[in-house]
Parts: sequence; C-alpha cells; structure tokens
Amino acid sequence: MKTSHLLLAAVYALAAISPTSAKTTAPPAATATAAAGVRIDPTYWWVGMKNPRLQLLVHAPGIGSKRLVAIGPASPKAAPYAGARIESVQPVENPNYLIVNLIIASDAKPGTMQLFFNTDPEGGKIKAKTITYTYELRARNTDPQRTQGLTQADFIYMLMPDRFANGDPKNDVVKGTRAPRVARDTMYARHGGDLKGIANHFDYFKQLGATAIWPTPLVENDMPKASYHGYAVTDCYKIDPRYGTNAEYQQFVKDAHAQGLKVVQDIVLNHWGSYHHLFLDQPAADWFHAFPTFTRSNYNAYALNDPYGSKRDYQLFNNGWFDTTMPDVNQSNPLVATYLIQNFLWWVESTGLDGYRIDTYPYSDPQFLMQWGKAIQEEYPRLAMFGEAWEGTEAEQAFFAQNIFPPVNGFKSNLPGVLDFQVCFSILDALKTENGDLSKLYHALQGDWLYVDATRNVPFLDNHDMSRFYSVVGEDFGKFKTGIAWLLTLRGTPQLYYGTEVLMKNFSNPDGKVREDFPGGFAGDKVNYFASRPGQAGEAFDYVSKLANYRKTHPVLSSGRLMQFIPQDGVYTYFRYSDTECVMVIANNTKEEKKVDGSRFAERTDGFSSGVEVTSGAVISDLKTLTVPAHTAWVVELRK
Amino acid sequence: MKTSHLLLAAVYALAAISPTSAKTTAPPAATATAAAGVRIDPTYWWVGMKNPRLQLLVHAPGIGSKRLVAIGPASPKAAPYAGARIESVQPVENPNYLIVNLIIASDAKPGTMQLFFNTDPEGGKIKAKTITYTYELRARNTDPQRTQGLTQADFIYMLMPDRFANGDPKNDVVKGTRAPRVARDTMYARHGGDLKGIANHFDYFKQLGATAIWPTPLVENDMPKASYHGYAVTDCYKIDPRYGTNAEYQQFVKDAHAQGLKVVQDIVLNHWGSYHHLFLDQPAADWFHAFPTFTRSNYNAYALNDPYGSKRDYQLFNNGWFDTTMPDVNQSNPLVATYLIQNFLWWVESTGLDGYRIDTYPYSDPQFLMQWGKAIQEEYPRLAMFGEAWEGTEAEQAFFAQNIFPPVNGFKSNLPGVLDFQVCFSILDALKTENGDLSKLYHALQGDWLYVDATRNVPFLDNHDMSRFYSVVGEDFGKFKTGIAWLLTLRGTPQLYYGTEVLMKNFSNPDGKVREDFPGGFAGDKVNYFASRPGQAGEAFDYVSKLANYRKTHPVLSSGRLMQFIPQDGVYTYFRYSDTECVMVIANNTKEEKKVDGSRFAERTDGFSSGVEVTSGAVISDLKTLTVPAHTAWVVELRK
Repeated sequence: MKTSHLLLAAVYALAAISPTSAKTTAPPAATATAAAGVRIDPTYWWVGMKNPRLQLLVHAPGIGSKRLVAIGPASPKAAPYAGARIESVQPVENPNYLIVNLIIASDAKPGTMQLFFNTDPEGGKIKAKTITYTYELRARNTDPQRTQGLTQADFIYMLMPDRFANGDPKNDVVKGTRAPRVARDTMYARHGGDLKGIANHFDYFKQLGATAIWPTPLVENDMPKASYHGYAVTDCYKIDPRYGTNAEYQQFVKDAHAQGLKVVQDIVLNHWGSYHHLFLDQPAADWFHAFPTFTRSNYNAYALNDPYGSKRDYQLFNNGWFDTTMPDVNQSNPLVATYLIQNFLWWVESTGLDGYRIDTYPYSDPQFLMQWGKAIQEEYPRLAMFGEAWEGTEAEQAFFAQNIFPPVNGFKSNLPGVLDFQVCFSILDALKTENGDLSKLYHALQGDWLYVDATRNVPFLDNHDMSRFYSVVGEDFGKFKTGIAWLLTLRGTPQLYYGTEVLMKNFSNPDGKVREDFPGGFAGDKVNYFASRPGQAGEAFDYVSKLANYRKTHPVLSSGRLMQFIPQDGVYTYFRYSDTECVMVIANNTKEEKKVDGSRFAERTDGFSSGVEVTSGAVISDLKTLTVPAHTAWVVELRK
Repeated sequence: MKTSHLLLAAVYALAAISPTSAKTTAPPAATATAAAGVRIDPTYWWVGMKNPRLQLLVHAPGIGSKRLVAIGPASPKAAPYAGARIESVQPVENPNYLIVNLIIASDAKPGTMQLFFNTDPEGGKIKAKTITYTYELRARNTDPQRTQGLTQADFIYMLMPDRFANGDPKNDVVKGTRAPRVARDTMYARHGGDLKGIANHFDYFKQLGATAIWPTPLVENDMPKASYHGYAVTDCYKIDPRYGTNAEYQQFVKDAHAQGLKVVQDIVLNHWGSYHHLFLDQPAADWFHAFPTFTRSNYNAYALNDPYGSKRDYQLFNNGWFDTTMPDVNQSNPLVATYLIQNFLWWVESTGLDGYRIDTYPYSDPQFLMQWGKAIQEEYPRLAMFGEAWEGTEAEQAFFAQNIFPPVNGFKSNLPGVLDFQVCFSILDALKTENGDLSKLYHALQGDWLYVDATRNVPFLDNHDMSRFYSVVGEDFGKFKTGIAWLLTLRGTPQLYYGTEVLMKNFSNPDGKVREDFPGGFAGDKVNYFASRPGQAGEAFDYVSKLANYRKTHPVLSSGRLMQFIPQDGVYTYFRYSDTECVMVIANNTKEEKKVDGSRFAERTDGFSSGVEVTSGAVISDLKTLTVPAHTAWVVELRK
C-alpha cells in the first residue's frame, strides 16, 4: 500500500485488518482484471442509456500522468468511435488512477472501443508510447420480463445465501480469497451456501407462495473473516466467487423470472469492506471519511433533522464508520457519487433485477441519496426500491421515504418505500406479551398519512438482525399465525425471513444465532424441510403457504383498499376491499374468547351475509356477532 | 323544556341529570338577564372591531315569529343607530330564539342601541305591538398592558380555583345554583376556592418566579355535581358565582397585569355542561350532536387523519360525547360556530386576558377549529393560544399545531402551540424507573422539526388529569429536581401544576386525589405553605424559585437557541445559548456518579473556561471532564 497519498483512514482500517492480511499491499488477485494491474470501472457499459454521460475510473500503474488522447475502433489517428467522444479527463491524487469522462450519443453503436492513452503532447508532438485499453459498449437487453419491479401483489422471501442452501460444492472454497475455507460448525465462518442452492429451491418458494427473492448481498466480500453476511463489499462489480460468477448471477435472475420469481438485490451505499480494492489503493484520500482515530457512527439518524442538533452528532452519524472493517464512503465527492450511481445502473442493466433493498439508507450523505435515487429512477422507473431505515418513530421513518414533508436541511427523500420497522415493532409489541397493546399497530398504519404512498413499504416480522419471530412470540403458535395473518394482509409488499415459515428459532444474541443454516439446504442435513415438514413446522409452512397462495389469487388482498377500526377490548379488525370483494381480518389478541359486535363494521360488511375463514375453511355465518377464540386471527372472505 | 323541537340528544342528557334537578324546565334563574326570560348573546359588544359583523342570538318568548324591524337610538321610525345596520334576520327551529345579523361600521360610536322587534309587516302595515330590547356597543379598551400574549420568558402556574385558596367565604354557597354547598371533606364537591383566593397570593406566584396564571375554567358550571373542575360550562358569558362576578374577573386580570402576572383562560370549544341554557332550551336540534342512544367519543384523534379510518370512528371521535353530562356542540352549524367565535372574542376584549388554553382541542370539528383560530388571531394577534392534544406520537401531536404538513382531510391547524405531552411523557419515562430511557426526551425535542415554531409549545410535568410528578418519580428528590431543571430550561413556555412546587403527592386514581386543596389556602388549614415551607417542601419551592427567577434575569434560558447532544451512558446534555452567553444543562439519570468527556460539547463550550451551577452556586472549574453525581441535573452558567 502506498502511504504517500493515504490519510489516517487507512491507518485505523489496517488496525482492523487481521495480522496475516495486513501485509497485503496490492489489490487482491481476485479483483485484477484485463491486463495485469489494469481495471476500468464500470467494467463495461451500454449504448442507448438515457444519460449519455459515462465516467470511467481507470486504474493502471502510472496512468494518472497520462491523458486519453483518442477513442476509436482502430488507431489513435484514425476516425473516432462513432457516437462516442471524450468530454474531459481528470487526474486524481493517486497516480495510478485517471478519471475519463465520455459522452455516448444516443445513436452510438455497440462495440469494442479502444482507449488510447499517452502523456500530454509537448509542442504538438506525442512523445511517449501510446497505451491502449479496450472498453466494451454493449447493446441493452430489451426483454420485457426484466426489471418488473414489485407491487403489493408480491411476497418477498429474504434469505442469507451462505446459510440457505449449498448447490455447488465446487465453489465452497475459492483459492485466492482471504478466508479460503468453509466451516459449518463455526458461527461466523462461511457455510457454503450459494446461488445454485437458491436456484435449486425455486419450487420451494413457489409452493410457499413467495413471488420474489431477496438474498443478502451477493457481491464480493473478500474479507478475512465474518463476511458471509455480504455487507462488507470488496468489489462493487463482482459476485462473490463463493456464490457464483457474474454470468451465473445473470442466469439466476433470468431463471427466476422464467419461474415467476422476481429478484431483489441487497445493496450498500454507505460503506465498503476494508479490503475493497478502492480502499486498499485509494484514488484519493477524499474517497473516504477519515477521523484522527477510528470513529464509529453514533447510529443516530435523528441528528439529520434535529432542529437542535450539533454538527458533531450530524457528522458522526453521517461520516463515522459503521464498523471497524467498514470504511465510510465519502459520497459528497462527485467522483464517488458517480461511481456508485453507475455501479447500480450497471447491476440493473446487466442482470434485469427487479428491485433494490438499500442497506443503512439514512447513513449515506443526504444530498447524494437524492442524486442517486433520481439517477436510478430516471433510468429504471419500474425498479422497486426500499430502504432500511431502522428508526423509532413514525415521522423519522417517513423522513427517509417519499413523504409529505417539505425538504429539511435540504433533504427530501425520493425513495419509494422503506422496510416498515414501525409495523414490525408494533406487531412484536402486540404479540410478545400477554394481552399486548394493539394500539401501536393501529397507530403504525394510521401513520401512513405521512407518506406519499405507504403501499410501497415492506412490512416484515423479523430479519437477519433481529430475534426470530417465533421466539419473540414465546413459541406461541396462535400468536405466530396472527403475525403471519397480519403480514400477508396488510398494505405493502410483505417480506418473510427464511426459516420463519418452518418455525426456526433463536434470539439475536449474538446475531449468528438467527442466521443458522436452513435445514435441508446442506449435504448431510438430518432434517430436510425442503423434502418434508412434519409436525408444527409443517403446519406453519402450510399456514403461510395457504395465505400467500390465497393472496395470489385474490387481488383484493393486495390491490384492495384498507380500512381499519380502532382496536377494542383486545381485538383488532381491518378490511381489504374493492367495490365487489371484501376480506375481514379480525384478531383476538387475548387469552379469552371474545364476542365482537360486528355492527361496528357495517361500513364494510353491509351487503355481505356470511364469510369463510380462508385458512381453515370455517364458515362464519353471523357477521353481526363474531365469536373469536383466544389468540386467533381470522382472515375472512365475505360472501353475499 | 319544550320537547317538540328537541331531538333524542336531550333525552340521554336528561338521563345523566340527577333526579332532583331533572325537573328544571326553564333556563336557571342564575342565567336570566335583562327583562325576564330575555337574553341576547353576546351580552354586549364593541365598536371598532376588525370584523364588522355581529350576530346576536336573541332569546325571548315567541321572538322567533318576530322580526328586527329597526335599530336606533330612539323610536323605530327615527334615524337608525349611526354606523349600525341590519344585515339579516334568521329564525331558527325554536320559536323562542331569533338570530340577528348586524353590520357595525368602523366609524360607529359606542352607545346603547334599541332593537325594535315586530311581526312581519302585512301590506306595509306593522300590526303587532313593537317589542324593544336594548343592546350596548362599548368602546374598546386600548390599554397596552392588555392581552400581551406569552413568550418563552413566561412561566405558567396552573391551578384549580376551587382547590387553591378561598379568599371570599361569602361566595362559597350561592343560592339558586344547583349544588349550593361547600364540603371540603368531599372529593367532588366544591371546596370554596375563588378568584379572590388566587389574587390574595399574587405575591406567592411572584416569589416562585411564575409570570402567568392559568386557572382551570372560571365560567359558570351550574351542574348538580362534580362541576368544580369547570369543564362543564353552563353559561358561556358568565364567571361562576362561586368564583366571583364578571366584574371581579375583569379586575382580577387588571390586578394581575399590574403585578406583572399574565392570565391564561382555560376554555372548552368541544362540549358544554348538560345544564347549559342553550342545551336545556335548544335554539335548534342541530346545535348538538345526537345519536339514538347516549354515545361516547372514542377519544381517538387518530381517526381524523387515518388514511384507512372508518367514517364511524371519525364521527364517533368528533361527535360522540366527552361524557354523559357533556353534550357535544355541533360546530359545523355556522350559527354555533359564530356563537363560539364571538364568545371568545368577547372574553379577550372584556378582560384583556393574555392567552387561551384550549381544552380537548382535537375533539372539535376540524373546519371549525380553523375558522375559530383564524377569527381569534385576526382580532388578537398577540394572544397566546395553546391546545390540549393528548396524543401518543410526535406527528399526531404536531398535527394539531401549526406544522410542516400539507392539509390532511382539509385540516391544517392554525393553532400556535400545544401542551407538550410528548415532552411530558418522555420526562416521566426517563425518571419513573431506575436508569430510565433518556432517548425519548431527546427524540421529543428532535420532533420539533414537525412544527412551524415549537417554542410556542407548553412543556409540563403534570396537571389535573395526571398523577402528581413527585409521586410518579417515586418521591425521589434528585429526580424531582432533574424534572424541574428540564422544565425550566427547555424551549417553550413551561407550566407548573399547583402544589408540585411543594411536593404535593398522589396518583390520579381517582383524579380527585390530584386535585387536593393547597395547604394554607383555606381557613383552618393546619399547614400553610404560603406562610412557611419547612423541610423538603421548602427545598423544592426554593429550587423552583431559584431556577425560575434565574430564568427571569437570564434571557438566554428563554430566548436563547437550543442545542442538544445525543444522550450517552445515562447522561443527557443540552445548551441554551446566544452569541455571548451559554447555559449547559447536564443530567445524570443513573444511580452512579458519571464522568463525562466534555470535549464532545466543544461546539458550545469553546471560549468558556468554567461554569457555575446556578441553583447551588457550585463552581465547575473543568469543562473538559465533568463529574456529575448520581440522579443530578446541573444548570451551569458558563464563564469565560
């Protein structure tokens, strides 16, 4: 590692790097592309993008002292590449990088472009030897099945690829990576799951009623330890070889689409892993946020819009590191912003993925978030986007999605939706204690008045950072079913965390305990829930499956309007309805049977005479007096 | 009571009226004015109001079949009253009422106007005998001491007049009222406190450092029981005779102003008492909200702006009765709206009061609230107004004040401020348990981004509906002082509930327990806290007094800016500051001494070298390392 152009940031980053790896001074072998030491990001691009600008980050020894003198199909002196022209060239602090700004005209043809680099001409004469790199401009894929986005009709299955299923034992251990081993008995080691493992179980997702898959990040995390989770990215343009290749990922998305399954890519804008090639060999010190000593984020997004906030708390939140091994990317640097924007255009265009789940959304530079969101949405208006905004109040959560607020401190989010932590927390509050408070769930929904369109939010019951839902509700099956019933009938696009459907348990202490292998996903598993699900695990799966598949065939549960009634006496009731259909969801969250006066709900039940509980088939013959058993949720299709 | 023009509403109102009083069929003697059975509201008016319109509600037997044929100083045929003209006359359902709409020109002179009523002319001839009532148009009082409003520099002392002090034993029992007795040993009887009792203790308020007095409502509550609290109004234009006369109240406000004390009037827009003369003899059935049987409000303001709310929940909230004895006034009736608007212009103009505290603010018709607030503010821009919006979330509370939201369901509040339940709840949450959560207080303040100007909110620790603060904090004197320190140094105009300054105790179960007599306010009291305050009661008083008086002489604590830092390790720190001054408030809310690294606060402490804790005089010589004892709040004036 060259230290001349590196700031303190690298010092404490190295402090977090394990001793054996700290000696690494060049970009790791796994990231080397094309000619030795030469790399151009984006790795390729397309003609016909809405934005004609393309900014290349060229990495090659000493390239910073050279200039792009011509682009063309042939020699530097021949005609230039048709439709492409050089806008500008910009050296950065590190002599091994050069920024090249191109304009790709709308009529440019796909092909391979030659980039001719030389020193600046002196007296009109180019003195040094010309260096030539090739760069590919591809044709866009216009398959209409690509990038369909998500609607409320979707149901997202979230999983951790390393922990779900191992479909290709050959990629379990990849030579040249920093942690070349699998160890299923070790919580923070890699366990061997991969893309093939997910693809092998497309049928399972479909049987469950899921319509979309959200794997935690699949891009390279070539860290020496504990990077199985995927949130410490080391190469923004590469699928981690333990999961597969870029080509295999493209095929994975295509195959999923062919099966009627959409794909959500989990992405991190805020930080990279400390072994990211652009951190190990930084284009310039201002690509990362640096403090005199390692400085952690205060994890307090409220500092962003606190009218009384200190600059210190604001900067700590935005610029402090998420963890010792996760350098905070400086998105206020326009070069970094463009790098990230292009990277996430690239993934959509190269794969046809359907949506982005954006990790640690509030932690990024607010101005950048607006710029990034606008650029992505202009190019891919159908793409779904929802962010992780793990906040404690409705207003603060809504602050990070498209909302009714005027800009605050110059920020107005353009993100269509967020992971709905308020709905999650309020469901857990309702169910985790006896006679839990239902009003919070009612309030969480009522809080939707703060959004432009809260149906683009993603409700959930648990995830890889939280205790598993079945454990939180005290392994009470009635409460479990109540939570599932709410999840699958409320507004928004619901998300289920892998294993919740078969009652996987544990509290997130440590988090590895809620990231256990899916039973049956790995060779030698004694229990295989893909093959058979005896007992209550099977009942749970069937309950989810019944509701999710009912949901597929009854659009009133997704596109229908929602009407809720104030919870009373431990019972919460709402309706999904259209002009002709109506589904009543009524949940008794107490340990006693409740008789509910149905006349309260006349606005929605008038015109209907009875109902059928869709998971049990039980007939509800009297809508005027509803007798709901203890800890029971009914999903009732009303009949005329 | 005539039943022909009354709806069901009256039926269930009477059900709530006690048996002996249910026989009352005419407006009670106490409300009769002028000629027998004749009453005109507003009882008088002024020339020179900004709004030239004046709507009179004339009550007299059979007046509904007559018309106002002329107004003038002399006979019906002489010249009209200069500057006044009849706009229109409007009969209502009840033949004993007539609505008269007048226009008072800007150059009209004060004086006594004659209102000449007769039947409609037939063939140009007026047949019946002309009836004449007089009506007074007064000159406005231009004393600049009147209606000063409130600022953050104020400190409000809230009290219940019946329970604070008895200054005039002659008005303890008033003949002709429905509960003509006092019984200090009975929780819900009247105890005899009055206006004179409050005025006798102006010195006490000043010694405490209060600058404003908020008595619970003083207007007539001529109910057969439990109306000592004042929220069941029976005459909108009259001080309850147990407290004094209208003239005495006018003098009370004037005397208070002369002592440097402002007066906040506590008002109810949403409902009246069931013995209100306009309920006993209703102008029309549509002056009140009626249901087939008694129907209580669901007390759920969230229904107002729930995007998924039912009409039923909305209407129950808005139109349901607050209690059996509190008919819900139908403010969507324009006559009712005007009646209420004029009534509250009348009180300001007739007394010079400084502010309105608006009870049950969200329960009123939203459109009416906007209309009412606009009318009052246009006439009295200096008047302070803050509402009771007892809500559970920051966004919902902000919804009822001037805020950053666009209109929701046609409602956008124009109320300058609200009683800050979020600050109150979060202080209680912080202090009521050991190592209580400080983040909620931080969040409550951060939530100010939702307001146009949250400095117009009124923070408090307790009130007549809540358990007393000292009991809530487990009678822990350190926690008590912490709460007081926050109350008196945060933004907004703080409010203290009577007796909290001398450690009055009890939980609000039933509410009468937190409405006990102030010791020393009544003849024969064994303890007299006005005269001497031995022991911890005295220490508490002195602590409040020291801080409140410091606040008076150090405007940085009221007009200074606020900067807060994220609570860490059980310590919460904020600053009030100007360009030259700075006060640090640092509270250790744990049972261990805490060493706090003061360098975190450099943004505010740079340029200062030491500080003085203003309540103890202790010198804080080192701002870099702050050693704060267990359960201690410091209010530190920084020194250069």
